[in-house]
Amino acid sequence: MLGVEQMLVDDERLDYLLAEDLRIIQSPSVFSFSLDAVLLARFAYVPLKRGTIVDLCTGNGAIPLFLSARTESRIIGVEIQERLAHMARRSIAYNELEKQIEIIEGDVKDMPQQLGFEKYDVVTCNPPYFPAHEMSDKNISEHMAIARHELHLTLDEAVQAASQLLKQGGKAAFVHRSGRLIDLIAAMRANRLEPKRIRLVYPKAGKEANTLLIEGIKDGKPDLKILPPLIVYGEDGEYTEEVRELLYGNN
Amino acid sequence: MLGVEQMLVDDERLDYLLAEDLRIIQSPSVFSFSLDAVLLARFAYVPLKRGTIVDLCTGNGAIPLFLSARTESRIIGVEIQERLAHMARRSIAYNELEKQIEIIEGDVKDMPQQLGFEKYDVVTCNPPYFPAHEMSDKNISEHMAIARHELHLTLDEAVQAASQLLKQGGKAAFVHRSGRLIDLIAAMRANRLEPKRIRLVYPKAGKEANTLLIEGIKDGKPDLKILPPLIVYGEDGEYTEEVRELLYGNN
Repeated sequence: MLGVEQMLVDDERLDYLLAEDLRIIQSPSVFSFSLDAVLLARFAYVPLKRGTIVDLCTGNGAIPLFLSARTESRIIGVEIQERLAHMARRSIAYNELEKQIEIIEGDVKDMPQQLGFEKYDVVTCNPPYFPAHEMSDKNISEHMAIARHELHLTLDEAVQAASQLLKQGGKAAFVHRSGRLIDLIAAMRANRLEPKRIRLVYPKAGKEANTLLIEGIKDGKPDLKILPPLIVYGEDGEYTEEVRELLYGNN
Repeated sequence: MLGVEQMLVDDERLDYLLAEDLRIIQSPSVFSFSLDAVLLARFAYVPLKRGTIVDLCTGNGAIPLFLSARTESRIIGVEIQERLAHMARRSIAYNELEKQIEIIEGDVKDMPQQLGFEKYDVVTCNPPYFPAHEMSDKNISEHMAIARHELHLTLDEAVQAASQLLKQGGKAAFVHRSGRLIDLIAAMRANRLEPKRIRLVYPKAGKEANTLLIEGIKDGKPDLKILPPLIVYGEDGEYTEEVRELLYGNN
């Protein structure tokens, strides 16, 4: 195995995932995972041992790494960008999780054909948030543009791929901007994913929500629960206790 | 004008609407308005003076009475039950609001035909919450059964009537159980009402939501805001300050 210095490329660094006691390769200019990935990895249902989980739009593999601390199930991460898939694979190797986590480099839309229809138990997805036409910041790198904007994958396409991968009764969990709630629900119902759990994330008490967590069951029957609100920052501008625990664990 | 004693029928009583400084006829066995009606009347956009507001499923006229304190616009309440429409009319007379508020006794589904298509500025609706087949409590009165269960009006029918009554750009606001969020959104989009504002109501901090407020604009473009959560009861089991203010005003 390579030492840390030989593993890292350009401005990459090896960050800690404190709650999971794992490490992850990140790069300020290429890709770093966001709080939303942490929230989705905590929100999603995962089996303890059985079945296979697919994480679409996996980026540097943050969600598979988080999930590996909660389950012994096999996890497949799918990432279209070679540079990000390479980061993810090196992090997996560093944490010696190659037996549990596999990274597939490819287009999410091709995955049902490539990995198999209706074979998977859980799909998670933190997709690009912004419509392509909203790409106002011309200065961001191509890597970030692809990860954040719907250049190669629209929300409808992400939901459709998730549904096609899932067995009947399988669960799909998404994180997105709360302003896309209506579009996300419409796409889920159009693709046989019945929304069952929603959690809204508010930056501060008294503010509008900015983020949405939603889980649906393939061919499930309508029965929606809306979980308690999650507030990210307290009045003091610091993370709330709940978010600190999600990020740093109980230690 | 009749005195209070001559106005009241059976077990009716004349309750105070404290924040509005109005009074309303209620009956424990026939119909009393709920907190949800208060929440909807506060949540809904209303013009200050112009246009006409229609309140569907108006019951004993609580929402038109609440709204009359916020607007000078004309308000039409629609109620299918003669007994409830009669209560509403007597309350309106008692408060001397006959010039502003009119109660129509009839079926919501007939209102676009009867009142006119695409003529109204705002529609509010606190519809029956429970599917007809969930009517497990055989002991409730027929009045309460009709008000609470989808015996004469389904959610889809309520949303369709609201949309047909509204002008382009008009606003429809609904209150419902939060578990019906998906159905309500689907019905709204199917009827050209684009959801623009959602507020979720939680009985207590840390509990799942039980109630949903939603407003849509006819032929509006997608742009959803999710407002801060509304918590009804504090840790002490009493109404929170926000709810007390909605109910009792700033006095």
